[in-house]
Amino acid sequence: MDWNKILLFSILVMVHVPIVSIGQEKLAMQWENVPEEIVQGRLEPQGTASFQRFPQELQKEVREPVWQLSRNSAGLYIDFESDASDIIVEYDVEDQFSFPHMPATGVSGLDLYAMDENSGWQWVRGIYSFKDTISYRYNGIKPAIKGSLRTFRLYLPLYNTVRSLRIGVAENSIFKPIKTKEQNPIVVYGTSIVQGACASRPGLAWTSILGRYIDKPVVNLGFSGNGKLEPEVIDFILRASPSIIVLDCMPNFRDSQKAEESIIKSIERIRAANDTVPILLIEHAGYSDGFVQNERLEIYENLNKATQRAFTYLKSQGINFLHLVKKEDINLGKESFVDGTHPNDHGMVGYAMAISKALTEKEILD
Amino acid sequence: MDWNKILLFSILVMVHVPIVSIGQEKLAMQWENVPEEIVQGRLEPQGTASFQRFPQELQKEVREPVWQLSRNSAGLYIDFESDASDIIVEYDVEDQFSFPHMPATGVSGLDLYAMDENSGWQWVRGIYSFKDTISYRYNGIKPAIKGSLRTFRLYLPLYNTVRSLRIGVAENSIFKPIKTKEQNPIVVYGTSIVQGACASRPGLAWTSILGRYIDKPVVNLGFSGNGKLEPEVIDFILRASPSIIVLDCMPNFRDSQKAEESIIKSIERIRAANDTVPILLIEHAGYSDGFVQNERLEIYENLNKATQRAFTYLKSQGINFLHLVKKEDINLGKESFVDGTHPNDHGMVGYAMAISKALTEKEILD
Repeated sequence: MDWNKILLFSILVMVHVPIVSIGQEKLAMQWENVPEEIVQGRLEPQGTASFQRFPQELQKEVREPVWQLSRNSAGLYIDFESDASDIIVEYDVEDQFSFPHMPATGVSGLDLYAMDENSGWQWVRGIYSFKDTISYRYNGIKPAIKGSLRTFRLYLPLYNTVRSLRIGVAENSIFKPIKTKEQNPIVVYGTSIVQGACASRPGLAWTSILGRYIDKPVVNLGFSGNGKLEPEVIDFILRASPSIIVLDCMPNFRDSQKAEESIIKSIERIRAANDTVPILLIEHAGYSDGFVQNERLEIYENLNKATQRAFTYLKSQGINFLHLVKKEDINLGKESFVDGTHPNDHGMVGYAMAISKALTEKEILD
Repeated sequence: MDWNKILLFSILVMVHVPIVSIGQEKLAMQWENVPEEIVQGRLEPQGTASFQRFPQELQKEVREPVWQLSRNSAGLYIDFESDASDIIVEYDVEDQFSFPHMPATGVSGLDLYAMDENSGWQWVRGIYSFKDTISYRYNGIKPAIKGSLRTFRLYLPLYNTVRSLRIGVAENSIFKPIKTKEQNPIVVYGTSIVQGACASRPGLAWTSILGRYIDKPVVNLGFSGNGKLEPEVIDFILRASPSIIVLDCMPNFRDSQKAEESIIKSIERIRAANDTVPILLIEHAGYSDGFVQNERLEIYENLNKATQRAFTYLKSQGINFLHLVKKEDINLGKESFVDGTHPNDHGMVGYAMAISKALTEKEILD
């Protein structure tokens, strides 16, 4: 498709061995091609622009705000192997760098992790610069074992649209992109919270934490203000043969009657297409202001009663492999939110632990 | 003093009953005087500008960067009683609203908590607007018991200098500032981490969390990049008769020999003036990149060995009431930092819990 070629041109420019200054030193770098198909966290890489979440053809199916948010790179990541001690990533984005309640490192930043054989994913520190072209410089990385390759995971921005991106490694280093594993993903459909507000960096969105905890591919379909259990999104999820579907849309509902109907319709729609895919239905995790400001307390309490009614009804209709995660299971506290609505990093860790625990205890993970 | 009068003039302007628009409604507000002496978290309110941490006379004693940072309102708060359902705070600041790794709500924002008799401090949600004059609007607050007053705590910005501030309550509401309790404070002398980097809001700096956990006044003497165990700061702390002195300066040292000497000199200086004030010496809590990037691992490991040597030496010299909090006690993890150096909210909660536990277990709290 034409749009794909145009993107390819802007994304994958290779520049060989320029000299980059790191502190006082000059370092010779080679810039690496990022093959389009290795960007992970997308249900259909074919036909989807490299750093976006929906294939182009979905633009005519979904509401405009959902489409625009699907262009944010939330939950997308690149896995690669390298023996480089120095890695630089440079990229351009479309939108504002930060929000008042979410820093640039979360809205528009990157996050690099390195796999250690004994201790799992370890975080790698990058020196960032937010300018017209954003850069992250990762220096002094020790190899896994002398001379061997280390596996890296690079998370892309949560709330920005990436126009182009290139990865540079120290000259004469090896850079080997790792292709998407042939594994049916866990798909999480949700709101701004799922999209990652307000993690301080992309690796701390709860879906990203969960993916590392359980070592499975997790696809982030969070749409800020627009996680509304819409049939066209459900249909898109279904055609990807997900291993588990997680529905976490309650914070984008206000009317509990409508919420109940939407849950029932969505789950019936899933079951009409797929008899056995496990469904995890998540209650509203609450607001931290509920205690003093009652108005919002009532909203989420009513939504959770609606969720429980829908769950009970669906169970009574013989729907199997359907599981409920309750507000008390997520158990966010007074220190878990930044603005009362959106979890901070403390809340994100709590969220990921709760969902991981639910998947394990309910024996949903294969 | 002249400078004091000038500040008084700019800070405490009263404007009566203007009309403020909240959403679609117009709300009549009365703007309340904030008496200078009720700003808490300062060791010597007398002679200290309302929203700063050091008295004016200290400017000639301390290094210029320490003085400038002391003008940031980190750890300062205002306690008041009110029956207002709507509270507005408007204020002006001197510096940039946000950092790339810390949002405006943390660098320059406010945080309001309300006391509930049964459940302790509860968070209150404010709608913020970051413009030339920053405003936070807290609406729909229910009273403690019908008609009675509720106690509030308003935390001021962590990394900005407040020029002027006014508090508005709904017309005909009661607003009663609460004066500083006559209680010797716990004083924490530290680095950017103590100052609050990178909490997403002021109430989540670990010293603020600690103050709520243990219900004692905690004074924040964190100075970003400048927590260097300097004698003039130690002397200032000593003249306030603190109940406990917490030294958490290791992240601003690199040379472990110098760190060891500075710890010994500082604690000897404290003991020369005060035989019995408990001292809590805190190790470097580590960097989350230490595993993959060895350079910084060595720095904090060496600093912690130096801390342990200093601690052992001081104990051998008969110094009593001296306690060590080890890195393992703070126990920050891979998800506890934003940039490898500064705890995020998850790290801040962990920090506060560790210090609270240490104070309790070591029976230091009176």
